[in-house]
Amino acid sequence: MKNILVLGAGQSAPYLIRYLLKEAEQHDWFVTVADLDEAQARERVADHPRGSTVQLDITDAALRSSLISQSDIVVYLLAPPFQHLVALDCVYHAKPMISASYRDHQIRELDRDAHRQGILILNEMGLDPGIDHMSAMRLIQKLKAQNAKIVAFKSYGGGLPAPEAATNPLRYCVTWNPRNIVRAGENGAQYMENGFIKILPYHNVFQRSWMVDVEGIGTLEAFPNRDSLNYQRVYGLDENLVTMIRGSLRYPGWSETWYYIVQLGLTNETLIIPDLPERTYREFVEMFLPIHLSGTRLEQRVANFLHISPTGKVMDIFRWLGLFSKQKIGAPVRTAAQVMIHLLVEKLKLPPGGRDMVVVKHEVDAYFPDQPDRKKRINSTLLDFGEPDGMTAIAKTVGLPAAVAAKLILLNKIPLTGSHLPTHPAIYQPVLNELEKLGLRFQEKIEDLEE
Amino acid sequence: MKNILVLGAGQSAPYLIRYLLKEAEQHDWFVTVADLDEAQARERVADHPRGSTVQLDITDAALRSSLISQSDIVVYLLAPPFQHLVALDCVYHAKPMISASYRDHQIRELDRDAHRQGILILNEMGLDPGIDHMSAMRLIQKLKAQNAKIVAFKSYGGGLPAPEAATNPLRYCVTWNPRNIVRAGENGAQYMENGFIKILPYHNVFQRSWMVDVEGIGTLEAFPNRDSLNYQRVYGLDENLVTMIRGSLRYPGWSETWYYIVQLGLTNETLIIPDLPERTYREFVEMFLPIHLSGTRLEQRVANFLHISPTGKVMDIFRWLGLFSKQKIGAPVRTAAQVMIHLLVEKLKLPPGGRDMVVVKHEVDAYFPDQPDRKKRINSTLLDFGEPDGMTAIAKTVGLPAAVAAKLILLNKIPLTGSHLPTHPAIYQPVLNELEKLGLRFQEKIEDLEE
Repeated sequence: MKNILVLGAGQSAPYLIRYLLKEAEQHDWFVTVADLDEAQARERVADHPRGSTVQLDITDAALRSSLISQSDIVVYLLAPPFQHLVALDCVYHAKPMISASYRDHQIRELDRDAHRQGILILNEMGLDPGIDHMSAMRLIQKLKAQNAKIVAFKSYGGGLPAPEAATNPLRYCVTWNPRNIVRAGENGAQYMENGFIKILPYHNVFQRSWMVDVEGIGTLEAFPNRDSLNYQRVYGLDENLVTMIRGSLRYPGWSETWYYIVQLGLTNETLIIPDLPERTYREFVEMFLPIHLSGTRLEQRVANFLHISPTGKVMDIFRWLGLFSKQKIGAPVRTAAQVMIHLLVEKLKLPPGGRDMVVVKHEVDAYFPDQPDRKKRINSTLLDFGEPDGMTAIAKTVGLPAAVAAKLILLNKIPLTGSHLPTHPAIYQPVLNELEKLGLRFQEKIEDLEE
Repeated sequence: MKNILVLGAGQSAPYLIRYLLKEAEQHDWFVTVADLDEAQARERVADHPRGSTVQLDITDAALRSSLISQSDIVVYLLAPPFQHLVALDCVYHAKPMISASYRDHQIRELDRDAHRQGILILNEMGLDPGIDHMSAMRLIQKLKAQNAKIVAFKSYGGGLPAPEAATNPLRYCVTWNPRNIVRAGENGAQYMENGFIKILPYHNVFQRSWMVDVEGIGTLEAFPNRDSLNYQRVYGLDENLVTMIRGSLRYPGWSETWYYIVQLGLTNETLIIPDLPERTYREFVEMFLPIHLSGTRLEQRVANFLHISPTGKVMDIFRWLGLFSKQKIGAPVRTAAQVMIHLLVEKLKLPPGGRDMVVVKHEVDAYFPDQPDRKKRINSTLLDFGEPDGMTAIAKTVGLPAAVAAKLILLNKIPLTGSHLPTHPAIYQPVLNELEKLGLRFQEKIEDLEE
């Protein structure tokens, strides 16, 4: 009997655990779910005969190492900072590891040790990063096999409310880690457009948004997502490429509002603000304005500071969010970013009966050998919807790639060792095939472009 | 014979090493200087009979631990990220440690272990942090002993060229770690002014500058330095306090220029820009502008983007810095911040025969029992100048506090254990007394304030 150790029972875990428990019945496996919050782990496992739970503080080296040594594969769903500790243990005990988090240089440096131990360390095995990489690679390899000349690669991803559930003024709901929503763009962004590299500091990321049409949904908005340039190399795109950009999707309007939230400074997560729970939202916002000596109202001064209309859309949303409320913040928050996380989680819930939606879309512009002067655009789109009031699409699409990979590794169907991303065909082909069987399928549409 | 281990032979080390070697002669001590760049260590020790050098990669755990185990005290002058490794070894081998770097939570958490091992771990033992804390605490304790009611505490620090050497357009020279000059303000800043907490995101820190008069120098400029609020507690200032701000000093004009450098995004140190050494400075700057389709010149577009005059002071300085140069960058740089470091180091050298200057100034507003309705301002100012073409004031004032503390600890004159800042009188009193003997003396001036 083989043991699967799942580290983390949070937002992205439920679908993964459900899938693995089902597979465990068929293959005589056993699934152990470890989390600091064991109650949540128990809720996910729900007394399944093939599952058990354990309370684990991931910094507890003894228990961590012991659990890993007793497993046959480790699936990592906790926060990125502890990923490296787990990877070290996995290398030491020669256990393969799958993580939904980005690969950092510490993981990359374990490549040789992982090879030597004969194990695979597979990172970026979620939705974004994850399904986006795998589907991009498959599409690019297909186009290369057709001798297509790829000149532009645009790729979009987003976890959003479904259109009928996008009813609040921001048309957004918190369906994944709210910290990542609040801190999106924190390190700035860079991309290539028509041969020019463009770089944005954090405070300008949300001002460089643009519209994107998504088949079956309508017009969404995208803002630049981190370092797009890095993926030219990762995806093996050559010097024909003049445009390379990865974007994060929202409904139109989010970027406008969020640009001003960032301008005010409300997303700072470094400075510890004294006595924050005791202060009102008005007092909190006041801290981000220059000192005032006149009696002008806070709302007016915020609008003046940002050079926006005091009676316009952005101020409406600020008001609706509760930024001008006389209520005490109350929650155990210490930084501005934590206040915003608290507000978003409170205000941006899915409506009753609502469901979320996941979108991944690639737009690839290419010339084909049969019509070398005619630029075509290949649109490849994945749409998935959550269950109303039930399992979210984001939990499914973040969790399934890692779950499927875990199954394939236990069945010896991925013959790789070392540190990898799912950009290797030995990973993305079987995983995408399996995801298609589970209903996650990209739709392709080709259009002629006007030059 | 006692052994002093100095980790780091960089910019802040020369005066410290010179002082410790001199003390070593008197007390029969021995000084070992370890650095990755052993040539630099040798240059500092200069064949002194009481000194030796060793090449050390600080991540080499075996050599690090061995060197620490053979020492009686460790002085840490390397970059902050490795401080914790050294502190762990010091606790393990029960050796006291002094560091010029900020204390982080990892060091703080060693407090109990350090107590148990009977050693002192002393952080923030440089200029700023260091002399600023010690002099502030002594001044505050003196005023408290006079039953003064302190209502405002402003504190300034800076390493600058002396006035006669401040001849370049930015009136600044790189006399300390240029990375910290380029990334100043990176986490934003907060302070209290007239009872109001004010918080600035990074992109606005340099817009909240103000003038400061420094006796004997004239008018300088200050911008808010990190988290000033934290020091209300550290300095034991009570609820009478309505203004609490720590500022970094420059000659007037720096903040105006640097505000626009930050607005452009030129200080980003996260994004790896491909092929940067091969690109010209013009191409580099172009990346930070929106895409352009017309033939307008780069200079004009930079000015338009920043809403500043194309023929004004800031653009003059950009031009002088070389940001519009058609020259290749050439240096082995990977990020925008590294380009700026390279430029500043090249362009902002002390002129031949020039000397640097260190300023620490406290401005404390207080009411005294004999005149309870009359606010007074106590100005306490330290000025120190470097030797022309020789030892810098910054090396002296950063290095001496740690050097003096090392001597006092070896002579058993600091009866403390655990993790400490120099805000404890058992540290700041003997250290400041010794610094005064070495010529570092604060001048006090009291003035009546208009209400």
